[in-house]
Amino acid sequence: MTGSERMNDRVNEREILALAAAANGALPKNILIPPGDDMALVQLASSQVLIAVDQVVAGRHFTANTPLDLVARKAVARNVSDVAAMAGNPVATLASVTLPHSLGAQGARELLESVRKYAAEFGCPLIGGDTSVHHDPAGPLTLSVTILASPRTDGIVVTRHGAKIGDRLIVSGPLGGSFADDGLGHHLTFTPRVAQAHELADKLKQGLHAMIDISDGLGLDTARIIDASTKHSGVAMQARLRGSDIPCNRGNLMRHALSDGEDHELLAAIDAQAEVPSGWTAIGTITQRHTEDQRSVLVQIADSLEDATNLGWLH
Amino acid sequence: MTGSERMNDRVNEREILALAAAANGALPKNILIPPGDDMALVQLASSQVLIAVDQVVAGRHFTANTPLDLVARKAVARNVSDVAAMAGNPVATLASVTLPHSLGAQGARELLESVRKYAAEFGCPLIGGDTSVHHDPAGPLTLSVTILASPRTDGIVVTRHGAKIGDRLIVSGPLGGSFADDGLGHHLTFTPRVAQAHELADKLKQGLHAMIDISDGLGLDTARIIDASTKHSGVAMQARLRGSDIPCNRGNLMRHALSDGEDHELLAAIDAQAEVPSGWTAIGTITQRHTEDQRSVLVQIADSLEDATNLGWLH
Repeated sequence: MTGSERMNDRVNEREILALAAAANGALPKNILIPPGDDMALVQLASSQVLIAVDQVVAGRHFTANTPLDLVARKAVARNVSDVAAMAGNPVATLASVTLPHSLGAQGARELLESVRKYAAEFGCPLIGGDTSVHHDPAGPLTLSVTILASPRTDGIVVTRHGAKIGDRLIVSGPLGGSFADDGLGHHLTFTPRVAQAHELADKLKQGLHAMIDISDGLGLDTARIIDASTKHSGVAMQARLRGSDIPCNRGNLMRHALSDGEDHELLAAIDAQAEVPSGWTAIGTITQRHTEDQRSVLVQIADSLEDATNLGWLH
Repeated sequence: MTGSERMNDRVNEREILALAAAANGALPKNILIPPGDDMALVQLASSQVLIAVDQVVAGRHFTANTPLDLVARKAVARNVSDVAAMAGNPVATLASVTLPHSLGAQGARELLESVRKYAAEFGCPLIGGDTSVHHDPAGPLTLSVTILASPRTDGIVVTRHGAKIGDRLIVSGPLGGSFADDGLGHHLTFTPRVAQAHELADKLKQGLHAMIDISDGLGLDTARIIDASTKHSGVAMQARLRGSDIPCNRGNLMRHALSDGEDHELLAAIDAQAEVPSGWTAIGTITQRHTEDQRSVLVQIADSLEDATNLGWLH
């Protein structure tokens, strides 16, 4: 850590701040202290705030041939998808970047400008960040995005743990095949379902019991709703999915839809009496689980009932 | 990105959430939705929130011989120091970690447990995070921490841009030598000056015009107050520091105090009429700058007046 290394270390932080400052005219009035101070100050709609952080790492979340613009887009969009899952309203983002040597100043500028652009496009302007250049020449690109959101003004915050016995499970769109053979695919280009989340909450109000964005696979993410709701209510639940009803992206098998992940469609548990809104597809129901049964998610495929609890990225 | 790699990719996220959840009994009541959902929900003291992100990268911010516990401490503490600089109150943190292969599961657990411990100790419990393991075997440890804070209840938020002609410049403690030859030193063990910031704001109220934490060197960080205040007020300012008054850490020369950085003491600009509170040291004043003079910070050293504008990590 000599002086010159330290210089490289921080020089891009000025850029990220300058970029955001250059777009200051476009920053909404609720950003009371814009980028450039030790912290940003944000005026919220209420005294409650939603917050999450999510990162993308080269070789993990994108391949070497991915355009930087789409790397930035993915990092921002997957955070916005978390906001959708809570039926929140995006407010602002911060970006923490560790740059590889190979990227160069031009690449760094391109990446940060893309983060700024997509953050603005998704309604959560970039208001701060930190950048560093890897000391190790092999150090890969890491881009971590923090997102702030406001809960809905009607006070509805949709968690994973509110599902009930009898609920219907619905999804906001087709699943599977997010990651193409060449590393591209809709894991880079998906649209976070913020508008759909609010339409659903507007329509169902308290009948919208639980929601999650499908990031790791329909099997795993359904299990998360089931497990969180079981823990919260003390009532053992199980999801029963109908394989033939699961909407699949063109050319994808239902098994891919169950396990691929990174679709970033929404999965919701809604009241048994609620109508399935237009644009959503009912794929199953929640039943009581027998105490000796450890499976959280079963899927009916033709004549057999298969365990889908662990279908996804983690297993 | 095969299935098994994807598994490694996310498995530690469960750990970070489990760790934070295990300490749930210790989480304050204002964490309305604790770790485990798509986002955390936080009840704030008001509808304004301060937010910043800051990272530490192996080889940049710490050396290979640094204990993981101190890596975690530094990542949390430098964020808390940003809160101090705004005279804010720490509320919560999120951590985004990219782990090297070499760390192993035990090392990862140790790091995350340390983040949780220090975040709790500094009053900003860990409420979320994201973890990933580098695909590249040489990928170094990166730890990015986001911090949420509340402004003071009296509405005073201390920025960098509020300094005025005639203000006195004061520092909260001795400077220099933060980075020892062996890579250790007080850049790993400093105490963020949150209490001192509030004592100062309590005493001076609107007489506390501007503040910054000294992260990149007294020269550079003084210039940041001067430049931000010049830009904000339209009045060209210049800092005049008295070299002999700058408090130095034992064994360090004044020149180190001016340029080393990572001291994380506070530098404040206070009203000319205000008394210098106990524990703080007056080191200079703010004067009007002649339009032809480009220097933001001058320091009187013996008989000469030297330019300290660029003394620090960036130059």
